Amino acid sequence: MQVWRVNLRERSLKREPAPEAWSRLGGRGLSARILLDEVPATCEPLGPHNKMVLAPGLLVGHMLSSCDRLSFGTKSPMTRGIKEANAGGSTGLHMTNMGMKALIIEDQMPRNGGGGSGWWVLHLSLAGARFEPAEDMAGLAVFEGASRLLKRYGDKVAIALIGPAGEMLLSAAGIQNLDKENVPSRIAARGGLGAVMGSKRLKAIIFDDTGGQKPPIANREAFKQAQKLFTKNTLDHPQTKTYQEYGTPAMVRTCNALGGLPTRNFTSGQFEGAETISGEHMRDLLLRRGGESETTHACMVGCVIQCSNTYGGEDGKAIVSPLEYETIGLLGSNLGIADLDTVARLNWEISDLGLDTIDMGAALGVAAEAGLMQFGDGARALELLGEIRRGTPLGRILGHGAAMAGRVLGVLRVPVVKGQAMSAYEPRAIKGTGTTYVTSPQGADHTAGNTVRAKVDHLDAKANIATSRAAQINMAGFDSLGACIFAGFGFMVNPEVIPDLLNARYGWQVGSDILQVLGKETISLEREFNRRAGFTAADDRIPEYMRTEPLPPHNSVYDASESDLDSIFNW
Amino acid sequence: MQVWRVNLRERSLKREPAPEAWSRLGGRGLSARILLDEVPATCEPLGPHNKMVLAPGLLVGHMLSSCDRLSFGTKSPMTRGIKEANAGGSTGLHMTNMGMKALIIEDQMPRNGGGGSGWWVLHLSLAGARFEPAEDMAGLAVFEGASRLLKRYGDKVAIALIGPAGEMLLSAAGIQNLDKENVPSRIAARGGLGAVMGSKRLKAIIFDDTGGQKPPIANREAFKQAQKLFTKNTLDHPQTKTYQEYGTPAMVRTCNALGGLPTRNFTSGQFEGAETISGEHMRDLLLRRGGESETTHACMVGCVIQCSNTYGGEDGKAIVSPLEYETIGLLGSNLGIADLDTVARLNWEISDLGLDTIDMGAALGVAAEAGLMQFGDGARALELLGEIRRGTPLGRILGHGAAMAGRVLGVLRVPVVKGQAMSAYEPRAIKGTGTTYVTSPQGADHTAGNTVRAKVDHLDAKANIATSRAAQINMAGFDSLGACIFAGFGFMVNPEVIPDLLNARYGWQVGSDILQVLGKETISLEREFNRRAGFTAADDRIPEYMRTEPLPPHNSVYDASESDLDSIFNW
Repeated sequence: MQVWRVNLRERSLKREPAPEAWSRLGGRGLSARILLDEVPATCEPLGPHNKMVLAPGLLVGHMLSSCDRLSFGTKSPMTRGIKEANAGGSTGLHMTNMGMKALIIEDQMPRNGGGGSGWWVLHLSLAGARFEPAEDMAGLAVFEGASRLLKRYGDKVAIALIGPAGEMLLSAAGIQNLDKENVPSRIAARGGLGAVMGSKRLKAIIFDDTGGQKPPIANREAFKQAQKLFTKNTLDHPQTKTYQEYGTPAMVRTCNALGGLPTRNFTSGQFEGAETISGEHMRDLLLRRGGESETTHACMVGCVIQCSNTYGGEDGKAIVSPLEYETIGLLGSNLGIADLDTVARLNWEISDLGLDTIDMGAALGVAAEAGLMQFGDGARALELLGEIRRGTPLGRILGHGAAMAGRVLGVLRVPVVKGQAMSAYEPRAIKGTGTTYVTSPQGADHTAGNTVRAKVDHLDAKANIATSRAAQINMAGFDSLGACIFAGFGFMVNPEVIPDLLNARYGWQVGSDILQVLGKETISLEREFNRRAGFTAADDRIPEYMRTEPLPPHNSVYDASESDLDSIFNW
Repeated sequence: MQVWRVNLRERSLKREPAPEAWSRLGGRGLSARILLDEVPATCEPLGPHNKMVLAPGLLVGHMLSSCDRLSFGTKSPMTRGIKEANAGGSTGLHMTNMGMKALIIEDQMPRNGGGGSGWWVLHLSLAGARFEPAEDMAGLAVFEGASRLLKRYGDKVAIALIGPAGEMLLSAAGIQNLDKENVPSRIAARGGLGAVMGSKRLKAIIFDDTGGQKPPIANREAFKQAQKLFTKNTLDHPQTKTYQEYGTPAMVRTCNALGGLPTRNFTSGQFEGAETISGEHMRDLLLRRGGESETTHACMVGCVIQCSNTYGGEDGKAIVSPLEYETIGLLGSNLGIADLDTVARLNWEISDLGLDTIDMGAALGVAAEAGLMQFGDGARALELLGEIRRGTPLGRILGHGAAMAGRVLGVLRVPVVKGQAMSAYEPRAIKGTGTTYVTSPQGADHTAGNTVRAKVDHLDAKANIATSRAAQINMAGFDSLGACIFAGFGFMVNPEVIPDLLNARYGWQVGSDILQVLGKETISLEREFNRRAGFTAADDRIPEYMRTEPLPPHNSVYDASESDLDSIFNW
């Protein structure tokens, strides 16, 4: 496995063995190591000194269920700190087939380097790198763009691409990837990775793994055995059935019951329309509608959970795939919209623009508070997304996400930490996840350590400090393995399976604490990057209003002590 | 002299003796002390925990030439750190006549507290505080607003007021004050003080000093003698004549000659149209035009320098007063506009909106780079200011200043430090002032320590570290005295006059190092506030492009070493 290093200004590709210090790492941890070693932490995120790292997790490439995730890393234009967002789909798989431990993209295409639109496609195969002008791709949205690239490069390639949002350098722009049916629906969404790719003038990266092969395995028999146990544990886990049937939208009822479903720009934790946006309602709807609707769907090959879905409209035609809980929470209850068809349409628009649904839902909530739309008015929300598509000033304000929208529009009730929007777990009701939002080096992010499934009193901030810490370490570990959170269900039944898999795959002899080791190392690297970038304890803070404005129905505030927050990573 | 403390939520006024720790301080230093003592440094700048401080300098109130300046202090919504901006005019004088050492405005008027528009006028007199609804003032621009207030409260009052920009919470909004002819032309412009006043729902503060008296003097004879010497030194100083004749626009030729006149969004240090925007050209023009034009004008009573002016149009009617060098640099050469009439009209619009001309000029330069206007197109620049007046999304983007405009519009060539725009001295050509921009706790600000008049090689960054340090200490000292920079000319001829004046005024026994003591203490307090707010050395940095993009005509970059920057205040 090699590190592929592309320099855009030089139009060069170097393939190098990974340095010793990088060899034990993968995914999010490897990305953090590379960024810390190579990117000046105070650099301009959209300037030539920033780099983009693509690093598949350590277990990617072996048809391990839910373990093919790819980490995208960079210095974020949104948080101004380190950023990692990972995605399923086929990109990571192709990279490992090509023998890539990581891809590092350096510098920028000169703005007028190729004449014309100045946009480029980077084509990578075992034969090397090609830098192809992409005149005709300028301004194309994600679905049209992906379809054109699939025609041009054949339907066996993997693609990472940006939409108009990334071209416009909007801070909420992500990087879209193909799922196993070649639908560009797997987005590394958060923190403006798409803007960094746009700043490098790359519209898309093509991965052609022709001639490649599965990554080597040091001890096939041991790997097979561990894999079997992991698959069984995953299939047997009670959560697996829930996620198979309802997918992540199962969380609507759970969070609403906990009083932690963000509603009308985070002014309530319960939504009177929760039932009609619930996973249960969605499942009934999709089963009734049939056609292209699917209540279960795998985003990566080999996944046995298949928590994804295809949301079909009344005519059975697919509106969007997948429709996830976070999106429903932010674009549904958070906007006062109780209708899944509307949420699905908003979701498709946002995905087609190449934006993060979480930050966009939060930004629209802020826009509603600023008087730019009424809560519940889905047609107006669609119009506002149209502003982004047209690149108007208002569209740009919104496309930079909730924090920027709040600043520009003069709204103070803005649910962000480190400039990144909170996900669909109200931190005043689910305080462990709140503490993750506050202390994660990534900014507000439920995937950095969600505590909603923990058996704790979610309203007790103090009791949830340790819960958040444990969840953050585990997730940083999973993100280094390339495992999705639901793989975690299977792993946690028998944690020995993790060292077993790694030792069999790499010929290592890591112990049972490897997940903790990887997790802690990753968080430490990220915090060190942020420290160098100028972050202090003052950045590990909840928005002021969440400490003073009580949230119905519990009328609770976020009340973790600053000393608890500041010592959470003292391990 | 007392501290007046107004709480808006409680609608209360308390008059208290100043605590011992505050008693030696005034102006900027006192403001810093109060903010550090009372405002949580991590608070939301536009939220209820931020406070506004108005503190006249230590020498205000005695008809000392150029020494009636008033410091406005707060946590800045623009830099997110401590902020002080001072202004001439009559407000500081009225405050001292009323016996105010400082006015502290706490908390906020509840948004719907008074029904209607929710805007208020705070009326202060020896009788106490009145909180008056200001329905009819909502949305009024500065000139109309001031005129209405003068009718209502009589033409003997002093007024501090905000325009539409402050109401919209725009980060470049300032606070306007009346000059001695009751023209609202003296703005505490920088860093969004007007937005903080807007967040408190205060449209204006009226100071009625009826029944007041000049502040007491411990030793009248000694004071009179020192004052006489200071006035003579000021009048005799060669710079005084220059500033009397040409005002600050004398600097156009100087800076252009140094290659440090910001031109077309800081891409050149020389402007081919410099001659027609020079102070010399302006003087000829105004003398020829006559009418309301004035080549010399005092903004404060007692000033012997009178560097201000009234810029009259072809018909002799006043377009704006004053037209300053900074404005000409940012709205003239920086926008590629070589015509003073256009610059004057832009200036009037910006003042009427209650905005900072420096940050607005820089924001328009960024807008031009983003393709929203052509350099040189004054009509389009006026249109863009119209967007602010109408409160459109584009107007709001621009009204937040250059840093926000750069972020939203995706421009990387943005001349800011700590989110605040640079003034009309190019840091790559006048590197001492550049070092002040970078290291001042205030963000980029020439008034924090301009080195352009120093006899040094302005292109030698290393040699200018000490120059910047000395200038920053002096200016922080002057800002604590209430002295304008041009008073400094007089003071520096015979620095003993400063302790002499203070000792005579207050019965103190301070030594000849008092200016240094005040200056260092002020900067230390400000840096401590910023440290608590989360600032680190990473915030004391020039924009990346200024270290790599050579600036014509010298083709120099800003190249102060980070270790020099990080140790500049190690005294």
